[in-house]
Amino acid sequence: MNIEKRFGLRIRELRMMQEISQEELAWRCQLSKNYVSDVERGTRNVSLKAIEKFAKGLDVRIEDLFHFER
Amino acid sequence: MNIEKRFGLRIRELRMMQEISQEELAWRCQLSKNYVSDVERGTRNVSLKAIEKFAKGLDVRIEDLFHFER
Repeated sequence: MNIEKRFGLRIRELRMMQEISQEELAWRCQLSKNYVSDVERGTRNVSLKAIEKFAKGLDVRIEDLFHFER
Repeated sequence: MNIEKRFGLRIRELRMMQEISQEELAWRCQLSKNYVSDVERGTRNVSLKAIEKFAKGLDVRIEDLFHFER
């Protein structure tokens, strides 16, 4: 699985754990709902700035977004 | 310090620990030397695909690239 897919699944996993919608996550991250949806589907080559927004929105460390590598 | 700067300093730190040049790192990561130089100076909003290349080139986990957050 490529890095975009793995990252997207991890974002979805963290969102589900917090029981929030994509819309709520988008609002928390200051990103558009469409963008969050694309990221979760693994179709976006997300950049550092957006990665930081996801970490802040999910209230986790950036490292935690990459804990799929086990 | 913004995320690009912090990431760039972390890449430089890991490169220095391995005692390799920017040119050697670029070769290992399959990236251009100019790009690696820009990243270390914190002027690039690096994407997932490039982040993965840095991790592979430095032989660390992606998480380790974000260990500046302590």
